[in-house]
Amino acid sequence: MAGPVLALDIGGTKLAAGVVSPDAEVVGEGTAATDPAARPPEVSEALFELAEQVLRRGRLQMRDLAAVGISFGGPVDYEAGTVVTCHHLAGWEGVPLRDIVSERTGLPAVMDNDANAAALGETAFGAARGCQHVLYVTVSTGIGGGLVLGGRLHRGLNCMAGEIGHTHLVPYGPRCTCGRLGCLESVAAGWAMVRDARAALDGGAVSALRSIPPEELSARHVAEMAQTDALAEQIMDRAGEYLGLGIARAVTLIGPQVVVIGGGISQAGDVLLGPLRRGFERYVMPEVARGLRLLPGELSPRWGLYGAAALALRELLPVD
Amino acid sequence: MAGPVLALDIGGTKLAAGVVSPDAEVVGEGTAATDPAARPPEVSEALFELAEQVLRRGRLQMRDLAAVGISFGGPVDYEAGTVVTCHHLAGWEGVPLRDIVSERTGLPAVMDNDANAAALGETAFGAARGCQHVLYVTVSTGIGGGLVLGGRLHRGLNCMAGEIGHTHLVPYGPRCTCGRLGCLESVAAGWAMVRDARAALDGGAVSALRSIPPEELSARHVAEMAQTDALAEQIMDRAGEYLGLGIARAVTLIGPQVVVIGGGISQAGDVLLGPLRRGFERYVMPEVARGLRLLPGELSPRWGLYGAAALALRELLPVD
Repeated sequence: MAGPVLALDIGGTKLAAGVVSPDAEVVGEGTAATDPAARPPEVSEALFELAEQVLRRGRLQMRDLAAVGISFGGPVDYEAGTVVTCHHLAGWEGVPLRDIVSERTGLPAVMDNDANAAALGETAFGAARGCQHVLYVTVSTGIGGGLVLGGRLHRGLNCMAGEIGHTHLVPYGPRCTCGRLGCLESVAAGWAMVRDARAALDGGAVSALRSIPPEELSARHVAEMAQTDALAEQIMDRAGEYLGLGIARAVTLIGPQVVVIGGGISQAGDVLLGPLRRGFERYVMPEVARGLRLLPGELSPRWGLYGAAALALRELLPVD
Repeated sequence: MAGPVLALDIGGTKLAAGVVSPDAEVVGEGTAATDPAARPPEVSEALFELAEQVLRRGRLQMRDLAAVGISFGGPVDYEAGTVVTCHHLAGWEGVPLRDIVSERTGLPAVMDNDANAAALGETAFGAARGCQHVLYVTVSTGIGGGLVLGGRLHRGLNCMAGEIGHTHLVPYGPRCTCGRLGCLESVAAGWAMVRDARAALDGGAVSALRSIPPEELSARHVAEMAQTDALAEQIMDRAGEYLGLGIARAVTLIGPQVVVIGGGISQAGDVLLGPLRRGFERYVMPEVARGLRLLPGELSPRWGLYGAAALALRELLPVD
């Protein structure tokens, strides 16, 4: 198998560049905080500089690399190689980032959203190594997903498959970021946990979460306090069970061999995965799920980098 | 492309055998009612006799055929080629029907459940001709489904993918045939429509459905009377909207290009498909569904025969 490849990760709060070998060795890597005020050309420039630093440190040149993969933190038009929008940075609508990167590096390039990239990364290098059918769910500020079927990313119509966060769950439930009511994301994403914590605190709940300034309160605080604080535990329980239900439905429909749970909030471990497994067991069709493994992701905090590398290795290079 | 192929369909109430050419011409076919008391050897014998009649009428011999496909009305172990169970006929558990058929005909054989077979049939010959990603949903006494992804049947773990009827829908809803509560099937299948109609009639509802002897009341009656009877219309509306919601979730997750609605009750047309489309539009993520077509199946009443033929043509024979 050819390689190594260049992996680029554009996230909401950080940029990362790395050189990754086909056997998942990170030969070199660098990260930088994203400047929230930067426009796409500055962000790209910062990313290229990061990549060049990594190459210099590794005594490598661009021509030593076989391809470049890009994981982007927002929806992309996979076929056109353009960004649809970025939820954290301004001005990205329609930017042809794949071709910009390809021209600048002189390498064939592939780009996908971070959930699809991470799904392929966990399949190539992580918790789902060696599996053909994988459902990846990322639990973070939002809820995303990716499907690997028959060993390849399944992108579907409009390259939008995998949107488990926006499958309907609660009749007339809370309004979601997508504008509809009661999506899984509206009751189980990080932003929903924060909304629920604030509402409980506003209502006078006794909780250690009160020690955090309301405007700083994040899902990370809820997850961290869930082992010792009743309100935080209730919020994680509820979100986890809803996630388990949403995943159970997806499994009954798709029949993956492995479900991998990634994303920042999944790092909370059993305070999320415990109720998630309970909800899953309760609602899944057992005949479909016999032998299925439900696992935490293994690539944190480098899922973007490994995901980008997996895109380049699996989609651009010939497999021996 | 080689061919023609022998297509065998074992349903709950009838057997069918046919010879189908690669361009979907039914060269010959025959059907017979199943004897509810017959055991598997008698059923197989009746099926082989039907096949031989069809061949004789067409002046064909087994050696003129390239392969045989079998659509079975119940869960099968696709890899082993055995029947898991038949909901309508006794004694089928574990019967190695694929190999029995292959030995008897001297042809390579493939067998799958009727929903998977019909999904591939609609993709090869019917409403989803030429499509890569297809969700097929059959609405009949029960609710089944099949997924064609990248032009091939996606069977998933335990070859059980596609079970949209047993995805959870109503919290603490009615008990389902699978033993759990609130599956889509428990509120939208034919048997659920009959249950709801009986309950309303027992409660004193004024309805033309009362003219039918209670033990004979079927979903077909409800569908037929839905244009003129308020109770029947309400029952179809409710089932249709639930189906639309269940399909919207599946589409948001899988991103098919086409959803095909088949099965006996789908023949009711707009009294089912109208509310189904309303539920679908309300709950689907529009970015995923842009350009998607939601269509009635085209292969009724021969979906079993065409499905079996599609299995043989697409899975056993080389494509030119």
